[in-house]
Amino acid sequence: VLVTGGTGFVGSHFVDAALAAGHDVTALVRAGTQGDHNDDRVNYIEHDFDQPEALAAIMTHQDVFAHFAWASDPVEGWCNPSIEVEANIRLSIELFEACVAAGVKKILFASSGGTVYGSYEGLICEDVVPRPFNPYGIGKLTVEHFLAYYQKRSGVDVDVYRIGNAYGPRQRVEKKQGVLPRWMDQIYRGEPVDVFGGEGTLRDYIHVQDVAVLMETGLNDLAASGTYNLGTGIGTSVLQLVQLLQENIDRPFEVHHAPRRESDNTSCILDARRILGRVPDFRFRQLADEIAPTWEAFKAARI
Amino acid sequence: VLVTGGTGFVGSHFVDAALAAGHDVTALVRAGTQGDHNDDRVNYIEHDFDQPEALAAIMTHQDVFAHFAWASDPVEGWCNPSIEVEANIRLSIELFEACVAAGVKKILFASSGGTVYGSYEGLICEDVVPRPFNPYGIGKLTVEHFLAYYQKRSGVDVDVYRIGNAYGPRQRVEKKQGVLPRWMDQIYRGEPVDVFGGEGTLRDYIHVQDVAVLMETGLNDLAASGTYNLGTGIGTSVLQLVQLLQENIDRPFEVHHAPRRESDNTSCILDARRILGRVPDFRFRQLADEIAPTWEAFKAARI
Repeated sequence: VLVTGGTGFVGSHFVDAALAAGHDVTALVRAGTQGDHNDDRVNYIEHDFDQPEALAAIMTHQDVFAHFAWASDPVEGWCNPSIEVEANIRLSIELFEACVAAGVKKILFASSGGTVYGSYEGLICEDVVPRPFNPYGIGKLTVEHFLAYYQKRSGVDVDVYRIGNAYGPRQRVEKKQGVLPRWMDQIYRGEPVDVFGGEGTLRDYIHVQDVAVLMETGLNDLAASGTYNLGTGIGTSVLQLVQLLQENIDRPFEVHHAPRRESDNTSCILDARRILGRVPDFRFRQLADEIAPTWEAFKAARI
Repeated sequence: VLVTGGTGFVGSHFVDAALAAGHDVTALVRAGTQGDHNDDRVNYIEHDFDQPEALAAIMTHQDVFAHFAWASDPVEGWCNPSIEVEANIRLSIELFEACVAAGVKKILFASSGGTVYGSYEGLICEDVVPRPFNPYGIGKLTVEHFLAYYQKRSGVDVDVYRIGNAYGPRQRVEKKQGVLPRWMDQIYRGEPVDVFGGEGTLRDYIHVQDVAVLMETGLNDLAASGTYNLGTGIGTSVLQLVQLLQENIDRPFEVHHAPRRESDNTSCILDARRILGRVPDFRFRQLADEIAPTWEAFKAARI
């Protein structure tokens, strides 16, 4: 398995899950990148944009390509839509061209359940019309469509994973990945936590290790393709999340309320039945159980 | 009204319709382009990529931006997907940024009903899940999504027109725009016409002047947005189209049959009810009536 973004938040947990299942893992990292998650069981290869010959050599003998690298987050995409086109979509096409030229059997893509759908009330299944309005989600959906093209042109199999609000160890505040590291950082520094939105601002929080384990099951059948929501099907409002923090961590904090940001969806709760059809015995970790360990991991990374 | 692609096939007919309705028209053309459709009622301005200051000046005082320019066709997009990202999507974002900065009220976009949906049997309405697999259609759909972003970010109104197989005067074989000019060119040169596909390969042929007149109605209400199929709702197989040519033009020809190309849909017939709800008295031109005049226009352009 060749992985991009393998030193990042979700990608590094996927690498762990793939190693645990006995796969050989090669991680493609940008030249000069010092991995957050260096691991001597992983073969790291440095690679930059626009080096198709080097990429062709790397792709040879890979069975699977798992694509996690993404140069933006939803707030950055909202402010700078060109980054989606000039970095994310462009790099993805370069990588997929190399995949199909080298005969890679399957591509796994970490898409975004939180942004490709746009705003929908209630449970969202994979078959609704995607209505993204945030450039980050537009970029992810466009890459999904290009994967359909490569699948049709070359016969490569493709699993798309539309991931909800992943949280857990290794999520970093510097990368603006999600609300929990931002709040934990504010609590750690004794500042009030900033809450955008209220009761109606619902999110589907999924533990990053659940994401990794479920995506790893895509390696069991390299001749199958599908699009899967990775969420728990449970909506948690930002106010409920504040309350979970108050109940589960050992430091008091103040709360500063502000309106929902226009770059954000109102509600995003993902119907998980399709992926559970593939892994029927799977049980999701519960957010209430995971806040305390996530806080401990956050503090440990700070020391 | 500021128009890109105003010297091209559909764009030039839109310019005619806008002029006929009394609008002032400015056409943005690439530097050095000699228009096919120069008209002294139109203000032509030369513009190239990556000149944001010049573009900002041009956009000032424009009420509407109508975007027809597109650097590829479905066959070219299939062979060279990067052109969609690096030319079409990128240029569209540059243009839309300038629109919203200048306070343009409405954007009209010429999308592609023939490619954004992918393969669907029967009538296709605007609310189905788009499943494009040709990079040309992926590029068009991605630009639609970016328009949803600009609409949400800035409040600009947006009409998206998903156009079927447009045909009629000024369609050029050099630009690989559609099957009729290719076949007419082959007939004109005494070669057999090449037919890809058979009875089941259904297309929705709409006369380019119907496209232009329907899109022009988008100028009547600058504070309304929508996505509209522009097709007749009638499917014509490639074999029926050959027969219409045999019945309506004055030159015999031979036919060479080949399988449908993998870059093409099986069937694409567009449900026109939404646009007819806006223009209830509209009657589409009939393909059988328009083959002979299109052939005459083709020959006249050759002489």
